[in-house]
Amino acid sequence: MLSLAGTIATPMAAWAQSSVTVYGIMDLAARYVANDGVGSVTSLISGGNATSRLGLRGSEDLGGGLSARFQLEHGISADTGTPAGGNTFWDRLAWVSLASNSLGELRLGRDYVPTYTNWVRFDPFSNVGVAGVGNMLPASQVGPIRSAFASNPNTLVRSNNAVQYLLPANLGGIEGGLMVAAGEGGTAANGQHKLLGLRLGYATGAWVVSGAYDETKNELTGNESFKDGIIAGSYDFGVVKLNAAWRRFDFLDSKQTNILLAAILPVGAAGQLKVSYQKADLSGRVRTTNVADNDGAQLGLGYVHNLSKRTALYASYSRINNDGVATFVVPGGASGLTAGGNSWGVESGVRHIF
Amino acid sequence: MLSLAGTIATPMAAWAQSSVTVYGIMDLAARYVANDGVGSVTSLISGGNATSRLGLRGSEDLGGGLSARFQLEHGISADTGTPAGGNTFWDRLAWVSLASNSLGELRLGRDYVPTYTNWVRFDPFSNVGVAGVGNMLPASQVGPIRSAFASNPNTLVRSNNAVQYLLPANLGGIEGGLMVAAGEGGTAANGQHKLLGLRLGYATGAWVVSGAYDETKNELTGNESFKDGIIAGSYDFGVVKLNAAWRRFDFLDSKQTNILLAAILPVGAAGQLKVSYQKADLSGRVRTTNVADNDGAQLGLGYVHNLSKRTALYASYSRINNDGVATFVVPGGASGLTAGGNSWGVESGVRHIF
Amino acid sequence: MLSLAGTIATPMAAWAQSSVTVYGIMDLAARYVANDGVGSVTSLISGGNATSRLGLRGSEDLGGGLSARFQLEHGISADTGTPAGGNTFWDRLAWVSLASNSLGELRLGRDYVPTYTNWVRFDPFSNVGVAGVGNMLPASQVGPIRSAFASNPNTLVRSNNAVQYLLPANLGGIEGGLMVAAGEGGTAANGQHKLLGLRLGYATGAWVVSGAYDETKNELTGNESFKDGIIAGSYDFGVVKLNAAWRRFDFLDSKQTNILLAAILPVGAAGQLKVSYQKADLSGRVRTTNVADNDGAQLGLGYVHNLSKRTALYASYSRINNDGVATFVVPGGASGLTAGGNSWGVESGVRHIF
Repeated sequence: MLSLAGTIATPMAAWAQSSVTVYGIMDLAARYVANDGVGSVTSLISGGNATSRLGLRGSEDLGGGLSARFQLEHGISADTGTPAGGNTFWDRLAWVSLASNSLGELRLGRDYVPTYTNWVRFDPFSNVGVAGVGNMLPASQVGPIRSAFASNPNTLVRSNNAVQYLLPANLGGIEGGLMVAAGEGGTAANGQHKLLGLRLGYATGAWVVSGAYDETKNELTGNESFKDGIIAGSYDFGVVKLNAAWRRFDFLDSKQTNILLAAILPVGAAGQLKVSYQKADLSGRVRTTNVADNDGAQLGLGYVHNLSKRTALYASYSRINNDGVATFVVPGGASGLTAGGNSWGVESGVRHIF
Repeated sequence: MLSLAGTIATPMAAWAQSSVTVYGIMDLAARYVANDGVGSVTSLISGGNATSRLGLRGSEDLGGGLSARFQLEHGISADTGTPAGGNTFWDRLAWVSLASNSLGELRLGRDYVPTYTNWVRFDPFSNVGVAGVGNMLPASQVGPIRSAFASNPNTLVRSNNAVQYLLPANLGGIEGGLMVAAGEGGTAANGQHKLLGLRLGYATGAWVVSGAYDETKNELTGNESFKDGIIAGSYDFGVVKLNAAWRRFDFLDSKQTNILLAAILPVGAAGQLKVSYQKADLSGRVRTTNVADNDGAQLGLGYVHNLSKRTALYASYSRINNDGVATFVVPGGASGLTAGGNSWGVESGVRHIF
Repeated sequence: MLSLAGTIATPMAAWAQSSVTVYGIMDLAARYVANDGVGSVTSLISGGNATSRLGLRGSEDLGGGLSARFQLEHGISADTGTPAGGNTFWDRLAWVSLASNSLGELRLGRDYVPTYTNWVRFDPFSNVGVAGVGNMLPASQVGPIRSAFASNPNTLVRSNNAVQYLLPANLGGIEGGLMVAAGEGGTAANGQHKLLGLRLGYATGAWVVSGAYDETKNELTGNESFKDGIIAGSYDFGVVKLNAAWRRFDFLDSKQTNILLAAILPVGAAGQLKVSYQKADLSGRVRTTNVADNDGAQLGLGYVHNLSKRTALYASYSRINNDGVATFVVPGGASGLTAGGNSWGVESGVRHIF
């Protein structure tokens, strides 16, 4: 039986028993993606329905409504066995917190930024797979407004070195949080940046309305703020849940506006049909680069069949139509899509939660 | 007590309890290896009896004889604490499957190729340590036929991106499986290749007979197939178990044929004596390189003393005699063995399964 | 419930149940460090009170007072989610052992060297954070005597490839051990070196007295021994525990002598006040480099408030005064401290053991 240690003392000393939870997801699928001008690729991929991962978390009751909590989470490219975050092994989550039932939670470490939390919530595809909302965001596009962040370490999803305050759960439906990161005099390549983010929402019964805003500065943004704002909401009619979200990136003289509309329909006791439509509209310039002619739109369709609460089969379809010289793509295809061309893909797989 | 989570929901929500098993092996030994022309090396090594590793696995009963399964396994160079697979952290296994008691198992991810499964089964040294059968395979030799695969990512042991079908267990002794990988338009260095493999065997009572065949293509093989075939069998007389295996690699105008003969003798209730003899015979050319003059033979001797079902002490000896310009070596020696020279080594250590 | 496997057999076979413990620490703090000439840095850091880590350990009773044991431990930079040991994932500990209650323990793998074990024991700051004793050691200083080891892989804390004998616990207060590593013909960059170390102490009631000595050779020391010796003791008066330690590094014609004085005062039932003072005195030359003019001294102050046995809040302060051209620094500041300048820092955070 796996037990859990509770002192720094030398190994094999007497340990205070405790609780830690080891959890994860293994999700693998076959995928086919065709990109205009460069043909198609068939592959086995990881994380079509939910990112494959392994994590640990725990909570200690300190009495008086106070608890200490932690979480470590590691993404896995399960088709090859490689860590999804490269050298950042615990790339998904690494934090410790003190949480009070009445006063809220103070959390230190690596965690989701407020805008991401507020964005992924309204995507029926959870930001992953051929139809995930991330396909139309700067993070998955080399070029235009994305160039403000150069390579991968950015704050569109998570932030290192974050200090967060999260509202307690008992505010009658009001929810939200505040996140700051100090910059540490470092570089974007090292995951260091100045960040200020906040999120505020109201969730009750069938309704959710929520807004979030982040500002990031690093040496790549040249002390200018990269601004990211979202307003979104959903209503659950029972036979269908409808989501709508508006997101705006603002950097120097450029703007990108994404609009997301989505619907989730229960099909019998075990099925779920998902539809999403997203449009990206760019305007202006990033320094000397005109980014206006890079619009696009994505249609996503998906079906999930739950074999149990933990295991599901799924299939998804997505098509991206690019305007002008835009090169938004469904992930997993050959590189080199014709500028302004189209990209489409399908995938089908199994997702197992453990 | 370590419990296990069962939903994608936000952390700290209510979790469906489940089961996951954390398991592993720690195996460390002192080794001495002498190579002709370059002297000897004494070292502490990892995995003389079984590769040091850490893994997680689980199975969920979905009802009706169906289950969802997964496994993640990570190799450890326990003498230094470094992952054995380098950047491929979960280098040993990373898969999810749906398994039916009556129809068999469909498995997606990284796993052993059919030929390796069929080869290691007949090696009393489990392909590791000074006397492992891998010493006489292309994977452990820089040169000859091995050059078809260039550096490490190859399919002599495992394949990325594999889709597998495995026969169910209730076929009266018949066992086997089929594995395919699509290539994904990628490179051998990224672990991408086209693979087709199959295995079929019959195991009952004291007898095992089994065959396996793999074909691999990648950009290093230049669209030519690297072919790997094995026929093997064993018979357990009680006082001794005898193994025999024949393996053939075939690439362009070259061939390598390995013959393995082995015996395992129980010694009292806790001991096991192991003997193996392997001969490698190369012929032909790989492109412009003549590989025929690279034959060699290995003799392995080992003794394992079980302190419990989980913990054993062991000692092994191996000697490789090279012909022509062959440079097969016992692992752990100094590099630069004289072409055609000999290599021998001994090791003794402890293997602990947890 | 997490259970544990006990045979090498194929997955999903029947497993002997066993016990493994998953444990760890998450420690995050806000830190401010100011270095003369280069200003200040504010950051979120990992491990101000204890290094953030994740580990596994287990013990199997083999009967007759004998047991098999193992431990794997991985350091985490919890502010960013990156492994603290870089490519050496299990950078903190990786060993297996056979332990006898009466004869002692034979341990193989990566572990703390005798001098480190004997040094950290007398540091109230456990060698980490702004006030850790490591700030005044060659390992954390680019320059002087430290250059004998060039970059990080060194034996001031741990050794790869170690064979250790540890005295049993029942010797009436006498404790100690012996460690050897063979060198393996390798390089310091690969963590290979010749090492001989020993530790001997007496601990009973309020008294501890202990000495340790290590010698290391690698290709960077040019076959000369880098020598590291410590004599230390502590006495617990109840209202205060006093520690004193003397450490001497000796390499070629150079010497570094560190003297550490420390006190730990309980404050009520849950608090602990910590004070340490350390002085480093260098003399002589390393090859052509005069290192004598590199002395310095550090004052550390800390307070720990325990919310439970597992969770604590803490705050620490440290100031380093350098003499001559010395550049000892509090960790986490900007690089480029003025030679002979001062460095100081404060930090406050939460440490949670799981």
